Amino acid sequence: MRSRDDCLALDAADPLAPLRDLFALPDGVIYLDGNSLGALPKVTAQRIDQVVRAEWGIDLIRSWNTAGWIDLPQRLGDKIARLIGAGRGEVMVADSTSANLYKVLSAAVQIVLSDSPDRRVIVSERGNFPTDLYIADSIARQHGFELQLVDRDEIPSRLDDRLAVLMLTQVDYRSGQMHPMAATTRAAHAAGALMVWDLAHSAGALPVDLMGDGDTASAADFAVGCGYKYLNGGPGAPAFVWAHPRHTARMDGAGWRQPLSGWLGHAAPFEFSPAYRPATGIARFGCGTPPILSLAALECGLDVFDAAQEHGGIDALRRKSMALTDLFIEQVEARCDGHGLQLVSPRDPAQRGSQVSWAHPSGGYAIVQALIARGVIGDFRAPDILRFGFTPLYTRHVDVHDAVEVLRDVLESGEWRDPRFNQRAAVT
Amino acid sequence: MRSRDDCLALDAADPLAPLRDLFALPDGVIYLDGNSLGALPKVTAQRIDQVVRAEWGIDLIRSWNTAGWIDLPQRLGDKIARLIGAGRGEVMVADSTSANLYKVLSAAVQIVLSDSPDRRVIVSERGNFPTDLYIADSIARQHGFELQLVDRDEIPSRLDDRLAVLMLTQVDYRSGQMHPMAATTRAAHAAGALMVWDLAHSAGALPVDLMGDGDTASAADFAVGCGYKYLNGGPGAPAFVWAHPRHTARMDGAGWRQPLSGWLGHAAPFEFSPAYRPATGIARFGCGTPPILSLAALECGLDVFDAAQEHGGIDALRRKSMALTDLFIEQVEARCDGHGLQLVSPRDPAQRGSQVSWAHPSGGYAIVQALIARGVIGDFRAPDILRFGFTPLYTRHVDVHDAVEVLRDVLESGEWRDPRFNQRAAVT
Repeated sequence: MRSRDDCLALDAADPLAPLRDLFALPDGVIYLDGNSLGALPKVTAQRIDQVVRAEWGIDLIRSWNTAGWIDLPQRLGDKIARLIGAGRGEVMVADSTSANLYKVLSAAVQIVLSDSPDRRVIVSERGNFPTDLYIADSIARQHGFELQLVDRDEIPSRLDDRLAVLMLTQVDYRSGQMHPMAATTRAAHAAGALMVWDLAHSAGALPVDLMGDGDTASAADFAVGCGYKYLNGGPGAPAFVWAHPRHTARMDGAGWRQPLSGWLGHAAPFEFSPAYRPATGIARFGCGTPPILSLAALECGLDVFDAAQEHGGIDALRRKSMALTDLFIEQVEARCDGHGLQLVSPRDPAQRGSQVSWAHPSGGYAIVQALIARGVIGDFRAPDILRFGFTPLYTRHVDVHDAVEVLRDVLESGEWRDPRFNQRAAVT
Repeated sequence: MRSRDDCLALDAADPLAPLRDLFALPDGVIYLDGNSLGALPKVTAQRIDQVVRAEWGIDLIRSWNTAGWIDLPQRLGDKIARLIGAGRGEVMVADSTSANLYKVLSAAVQIVLSDSPDRRVIVSERGNFPTDLYIADSIARQHGFELQLVDRDEIPSRLDDRLAVLMLTQVDYRSGQMHPMAATTRAAHAAGALMVWDLAHSAGALPVDLMGDGDTASAADFAVGCGYKYLNGGPGAPAFVWAHPRHTARMDGAGWRQPLSGWLGHAAPFEFSPAYRPATGIARFGCGTPPILSLAALECGLDVFDAAQEHGGIDALRRKSMALTDLFIEQVEARCDGHGLQLVSPRDPAQRGSQVSWAHPSGGYAIVQALIARGVIGDFRAPDILRFGFTPLYTRHVDVHDAVEVLRDVLESGEWRDPRFNQRAAVT
């Protein structure tokens, strides 16, 4: 087992270590919840102040042109594209992950109804993030499709000639378990179905290759993702949406629309024409006027990845992420043994996102609260999961060591049994 | 005709004059575009800095509880409710106007299909703001309804037993012409239809009474509106949505949902249940995680109306708005005669929102650009409209006088004919 000094030595040798200084992290806190809300990049506060005081306050309406507000959804989309294996002009930032999923599932259903109208099943995992399931359920009801929720190991049995769309989140929000993206997409395609990915827990945390490294059968069809987790865009930052260019090209040709056909997805919004005419390409997935302050903050989060590029980029981030999560598992198993924690995440780092989750039979919520009270911030996910995210941009090896020390204290002292740690807050 | 000194005297006697000091307005600019993007309240920059540096940067994920982020959509909704004649708990802030319109039209269609399935027509104005028409078109296509776009004077003839929903924007974005809300709602109801209002150009500018002053037949069914115009919430601020409590109660009872059924419209989002169970009341209209920075800015804009309350509130704002727009018409007609400007807005202030629009046969776009170059900011709306908004919170009578002086100069000098003023920007 590695000692605290070993961890300090790992940090000293970490090529990504300088990136931590790009973030404003509070004293006395070990933040292991960047998978829920990414930390604040230092430049963000100043940038937002400039947007508020100068772009809004002084230049006012003119900033739509002079400050390029109108281009933000596409400009940020291009910055995200580099992180997920998509091309320039293929990604846009808009709305929430839920709304974007609604748009792409509608588009997917439209394609299926045109090409293979007998396929009427959408398959997803029972344990997928609930909002994805709620939206898929809504789409299924609207179009007379059936939403089938299965366990992960049942998915292969559902890849049949009734399958219209396979919709998965690449990294499970609870367990951190990953789907192999290219192989899963290939299997869905081999069955004649479309593949929709939610990248909420992968974009910015690990290399994503939506285009399947040039292999057509491995290239996904649609994807959505979140701006406020590993992309560090701030609370409720807008989400992103990607469609394979073959689908947007086809939608262009057929004049198809997505249902949230608001004016900012129009080909020429400032013509103020009463008839909807979708923009070409990914821009058709725009809807209403986007929240500029939140977009500006997201851009600061994305620019951190440009800085990371000089230190090895997303591949180096992935290597560090695997090292941190390996270390955490090693330390918890060695130092917190006998307290009922069961590893929920895969032990193989290649099958794991940038988080480690443990189940505890009775104390999941309270242990997390007791940790937070001591400055170690993870989160609880019902029914029994303690979840810890490791953002390689700003988490050090010594943070892992020290967090486990606090976890050990909390478990050995039994302080988590204090009733105040079981008072449920609105948001967990 | 009133002189500049007369205007200064009007400002000196204006009970709302102190409110101007709550805004950060740039030097050398007369801002007559608050109907497109409201000006910056002075408190906003500091508040946003606090949200970014302290709530996000230091308290991080904990702020969902400790800073009340999770309550923002409803807390802001309650502040808006007071401005539109709605009750506490009836309004929520979420998404964009377009997305919210999609939700309420879906709910309206659900109600109609249940109660009077033969009604299959949605009627709106041809000149309604395009995004409303695009969204209504999308809903009509999905549900097999017909969207009929008519001129204003044709509306009465469409109030028949095929009408399902009458969807109107209270104040026309181009002309500023107002629909009489209670009478229009009553007429729609008398025909057996539902009434959906878009309050984009009315909320915060004039008294709105969605509940029809207690007369059941005059109470509207659904409404949406914009946060970044007269509510001064900042560029792309989130929008709001209202449903009559009888409809939300019925949706509760029937277990109905709106189609953008994301997790933040769930009854218990942090149970992470795979099955959607809509929240009761207006909260069911939530979808994804809201953009907190943009919500915090909107709250600052709404708090200005609390301050306005001490100076006569929305009724006093309406009186001043009518005085300002009357003054503008008087001044333009007296001082800019012979230059081809035709009044498009109603001459009767009771039929006019807080804007005045003029048509110009050839120079609409260029005249607006020439005015902006001289610091008088209005906007152009295709095909030929010069539009000037008068936000009574911060516009002075002397601003009206001085803006007309600049307009007169631009017209008399012919400087607007300079080709540079005809170079179209992306956003007009």
